[in-house]
Amino acid sequence: MNFDYLQDCMDATVNTYEKMLGNVPVVVGERYTQTGIINVHDVTALIGFNGDGLGSLLISMSQENAMKTISKFLYTELTEVDDDVLDGVEEIANIVAGAAAARFKFKTGLGLPTILLGEKQRIHGNEDAPWLFITMKTEAFGEFTLGATLKEV
Amino acid sequence: MNFDYLQDCMDATVNTYEKMLGNVPVVVGERYTQTGIINVHDVTALIGFNGDGLGSLLISMSQENAMKTISKFLYTELTEVDDDVLDGVEEIANIVAGAAAARFKFKTGLGLPTILLGEKQRIHGNEDAPWLFITMKTEAFGEFTLGATLKEV
Repeated sequence: MNFDYLQDCMDATVNTYEKMLGNVPVVVGERYTQTGIINVHDVTALIGFNGDGLGSLLISMSQENAMKTISKFLYTELTEVDDDVLDGVEEIANIVAGAAAARFKFKTGLGLPTILLGEKQRIHGNEDAPWLFITMKTEAFGEFTLGATLKEV
Repeated sequence: MNFDYLQDCMDATVNTYEKMLGNVPVVVGERYTQTGIINVHDVTALIGFNGDGLGSLLISMSQENAMKTISKFLYTELTEVDDDVLDGVEEIANIVAGAAAARFKFKTGLGLPTILLGEKQRIHGNEDAPWLFITMKTEAFGEFTLGATLKEV
């Protein structure tokens, strides 16, 4: 991989959060790579990249932070993780992934997003497709994890 | 959608289980459709369809049934849900999805598979992309759920 696709995903996230949510996320700590069994937060959006790049993007946050984020997105006070919250997380992930794919160095389309909900969830990353992660944070909505895996095909 | 894509996925599953695992799964009960928040089993493989069809395939089973299935697949006795089990589930899902896509009426590629692991996991299916499900079973490995969502783009 000859370009920094996580940086593209981070830039796409900053732009999307600024435009759609009025809050600019900042990076917390260093980026890290994981394969094998990977812990994720309770609410996790997964969306595939396909075309000349094959991979996935992940945005993962606590239930509380998901409610805060989507309450702002929908201009309404949401107090449980229901259909509206999960639809909202899906929409934001879709916009971020689309903006990221547009920045990639090769032609990449988007798959259908899937939202995961559960406690102590883990995903499994194949050795061939390591995930890069970074933690990001906004004052208003708290921390979330942004992850991406991508390989040229 | 003018063809029965779940049937294609079921046929692909029967073929794959017969060839790779030496066991022919049978259908348990009726197929059903779900949107919104959907319960899945502890070990769930998700793989996207893209190209002229956009969607996903899901194979979901208990941890016990995953260990039984992959023990047979790898000709070894697996007693915990580790990397090997999750890699095996991923490989089987990938073969099933590839065989299903080859049967579809329009040109469809595969995304990168993701394996989910967790207790009381749920996924969220958008109203625009309802999931079709069927429960299947083999004598040797017990029940599993096969699901698919697909729309022409």
